[in-house]
Amino acid sequence: MGTVVVGYVPKPEGDAALDRAIDEAKLRGSKIVVVNSHRGGADFDSVASHQTEATLDDVRSRLDAAGVSYDVRQLVRGFEPAEDLIGIADENDAELIVIGLRRRSPVGKLILGSNAQRVLLDAKCPVLAVKAAD
Amino acid sequence: MGTVVVGYVPKPEGDAALDRAIDEAKLRGSKIVVVNSHRGGADFDSVASHQTEATLDDVRSRLDAAGVSYDVRQLVRGFEPAEDLIGIADENDAELIVIGLRRRSPVGKLILGSNAQRVLLDAKCPVLAVKAAD
Repeated sequence: MGTVVVGYVPKPEGDAALDRAIDEAKLRGSKIVVVNSHRGGADFDSVASHQTEATLDDVRSRLDAAGVSYDVRQLVRGFEPAEDLIGIADENDAELIVIGLRRRSPVGKLILGSNAQRVLLDAKCPVLAVKAAD
Repeated sequence: MGTVVVGYVPKPEGDAALDRAIDEAKLRGSKIVVVNSHRGGADFDSVASHQTEATLDDVRSRLDAAGVSYDVRQLVRGFEPAEDLIGIADENDAELIVIGLRRRSPVGKLILGSNAQRVLLDAKCPVLAVKAAD
């Protein structure tokens, strides 16, 4: 069984990436690995950790409803999100990585942030970049 | 029937993009539109035009062998490749655009060129970025 790895953040672009990853996994008969990455540090306290846990419960519900096999990974190990995403993709010999492109508030213009660029350039497998609906 | 649009150049990254686009079209039961874009001008003379035609014959053979429906578009209308690719994707209400990421010679490091960045940011549909094998 192949693996689709998706970078998840609780924002419109993260939801768009998750939705598309579910579609791609169904199409390919693959499993999904959801990667939610935090650098950690002083800002990531027990409140933030609990909020994240609630968010990931919602992600699990969506994956259950979609009927796909999945693994949700919450990583707090001091790495940049791109580093974690590529690491998990390598571990799983991923066939595809799905990322969401974020919009720069408040103008709403899409940008290629440093994490997106790094995943696009450094991942061994193809990378599917999706956008949240306007 | 959905449409997968692929940007083709006769280079390793173009071949990788075409191969992946064929796989994606088969998986989705979609047709392929291959876009080969030249700005034109003094460098695009009858010799260049003939070379391109021979290259596109090879592309058609690969598509025939794959058994997918296709349309090969050679565009010489003074536009940047990104502009042509996005235009054709819009015309066809594409479900996916496939692009190849190029390597900077001679060091071989991958780069996100201005055309790749523009397609990633400006295309309405998801964009799949692939790399040629090392």
